[in-house]
Amino acid sequence: MVYLDHASAMPVDPRVLAFARRYLEEEFGNPSSLYDRGLSVRRAVEAARGQVAALIRAADQRKIVFTGSATESNNLAIRGTALRNRKKGKKVLVSAVEHISVMNPAKDLQKQGFELGFIPVDRYGTVDLAALEAELTPETVLVSVNYANDEIGTVEPMREVSRLVHGAGAYLHVNATAAAGRVLIDVQEDGIDLLTLSGNDLGGPRGAAALYVGPGVKVQSVMPGGGQERGLRSGTENVFAIAGMGEAARLAAEEMAEEMAREQAIRDRLIREVLEIEEAALTGHPTARLPHHASFRFSRIEGESILLNLDTFFDIQVATGSACSSRTLEPSHVLLAIGLTHEQAHGSVVMTLGRSNTVADVQYVADAMRETVGRLRGISPL
Amino acid sequence: MVYLDHASAMPVDPRVLAFARRYLEEEFGNPSSLYDRGLSVRRAVEAARGQVAALIRAADQRKIVFTGSATESNNLAIRGTALRNRKKGKKVLVSAVEHISVMNPAKDLQKQGFELGFIPVDRYGTVDLAALEAELTPETVLVSVNYANDEIGTVEPMREVSRLVHGAGAYLHVNATAAAGRVLIDVQEDGIDLLTLSGNDLGGPRGAAALYVGPGVKVQSVMPGGGQERGLRSGTENVFAIAGMGEAARLAAEEMAEEMAREQAIRDRLIREVLEIEEAALTGHPTARLPHHASFRFSRIEGESILLNLDTFFDIQVATGSACSSRTLEPSHVLLAIGLTHEQAHGSVVMTLGRSNTVADVQYVADAMRETVGRLRGISPL
Repeated sequence: MVYLDHASAMPVDPRVLAFARRYLEEEFGNPSSLYDRGLSVRRAVEAARGQVAALIRAADQRKIVFTGSATESNNLAIRGTALRNRKKGKKVLVSAVEHISVMNPAKDLQKQGFELGFIPVDRYGTVDLAALEAELTPETVLVSVNYANDEIGTVEPMREVSRLVHGAGAYLHVNATAAAGRVLIDVQEDGIDLLTLSGNDLGGPRGAAALYVGPGVKVQSVMPGGGQERGLRSGTENVFAIAGMGEAARLAAEEMAEEMAREQAIRDRLIREVLEIEEAALTGHPTARLPHHASFRFSRIEGESILLNLDTFFDIQVATGSACSSRTLEPSHVLLAIGLTHEQAHGSVVMTLGRSNTVADVQYVADAMRETVGRLRGISPL
Repeated sequence: MVYLDHASAMPVDPRVLAFARRYLEEEFGNPSSLYDRGLSVRRAVEAARGQVAALIRAADQRKIVFTGSATESNNLAIRGTALRNRKKGKKVLVSAVEHISVMNPAKDLQKQGFELGFIPVDRYGTVDLAALEAELTPETVLVSVNYANDEIGTVEPMREVSRLVHGAGAYLHVNATAAAGRVLIDVQEDGIDLLTLSGNDLGGPRGAAALYVGPGVKVQSVMPGGGQERGLRSGTENVFAIAGMGEAARLAAEEMAEEMAREQAIRDRLIREVLEIEEAALTGHPTARLPHHASFRFSRIEGESILLNLDTFFDIQVATGSACSSRTLEPSHVLLAIGLTHEQAHGSVVMTLGRSNTVADVQYVADAMRETVGRLRGISPL
């Protein structure tokens, strides 16, 4: 088996599980409880908050808000910030390649009277800075641009984006779900006001994610209830998942440079081999891309057929795009945004590497791809 | 150690963990993925859905929506139902003893122009049916009454409540977080339209909860994103927590009758012993109450002092009320609603039993309580 779909789901790192499992059976208390058992799990949550803050170089760990999922972090960032600051203005901008969990909260704001603008990208998926500048108005309260795109791997020029957004007096939200633990993120140097991080994408359990809320950024809760997380996210803290996310963040900070160099070397060979297949093309940026990410398009065949064939005959798991969007038959909005036609967008294959992958996988995957693409083209009516 | 705060946090049942842990490391796929690994975890989610449906005797397991927490289920039930049906009317009623995660979403609706009414309760915490009937108008879209209260244990007369609510053409939402797995819930016989269940309160991991949405009940999402759970709850499914909740629901359905008879016997002795302490009184209903639940008030001393003393000197963990509200210094709205004064409300102690408790705990806890209450009263200025 060669698993190449780490963007959709990551196994929990065994070291993370060894660290965090005590919070399931032994230290299972509620952090709001007043006795010692409550205090000890509250300390575990705060330690995790420190580790997550350190990963993204936040100056103050109290700026980390734990949520239940990246979707929830994105909702809090987009809806919570826009609604809280609506007196300043009612315009929100998102890049054309944002994840559906950013897109749909932004569209929800439209229903509540906000103006929503989409910032176009070039053929590599890089945000068009001139278009961004032109769209920014004094009424713009929030701009959301992903750190890197999960479908095509392109890393955005965050500092240039930030300069323009801050020049117009707006807040910058960055969905870093795909990027965290893969590239160095520094919320202060990068000029990021709000940043979404997912626990599972770092190798932690599902059930914990975070939103960094920078100094002075005003946000309101989108989940009223018990007022946990300084009133911004209600619900009893999922200590197991939060502690696991903290440990995963600690490991990422420590091992990222080395592990990503390893994965990038494998990924580079994989790209070289796959591009030798006829009518195969890389999607996304050739160099400014996530080190574990390879994405392609193949003419005249469906990415879904490739995926199913690789799984059935070679036990190789890949994706055609974002797992969240996989049930719709619509072509990916990301691939359309970089200028592909519907037909081209349907031939997409995404491979995302992880710790289990080795250089020995490259030839096996490349051969399997060549055979699969050849067979499918042989029976293709196109 | 005698842990008597199962309402705040439950250890994960070792059998549940043994069942569900495979979804952390081995079967870690994303249920939306198209390959076999995705299908197998999707089947795990559907199996859990069936177990949860069976526990509350829902006719169709597709009526179960998995969310990330009971808070989120309550938000979806209250805000999602009221907003979706606002054309019918803009009045919402909640009982005066609802959990803060029901109260605050309801208050959020007030800010959006809804009328919010509170249904009073009697001195036992039982909903005043005549008052409910008087408050129901043709504009009432939703009524929320907890199955049983987590602070005072009182079980509500659900069928009578349902008859009145349905007579007025409104939907009935029931927060069954405290009741599920403790008393038999039958959403059809009880006439419940929307029902909140928490995974951890059944002995599953945190990170999964459910909302039952009955036939014909119209609800809209309060968390836009990838459109999982038939569009009602976005975010990648937390398969570990969902599978664990399913297994916990299966065990509850199988073992509830026997285990609750066991816990009730211990609880009854505990109440008898504690009530022998001077100026101790039971809060909540003497008979229509959760079988694992004992709650008291003691005059002239603070519940918080009792809690800390029991923890420090006897390693006994109890609560003073809802953990979610424990950080505010406000007296419990539940205790005020049953007619206690501020002073009386501050002397509250809540004990909730679980599998680890035995009849041998009773004398130890009663003696510890007597000694603690005596000592605190000795130094009390009142």
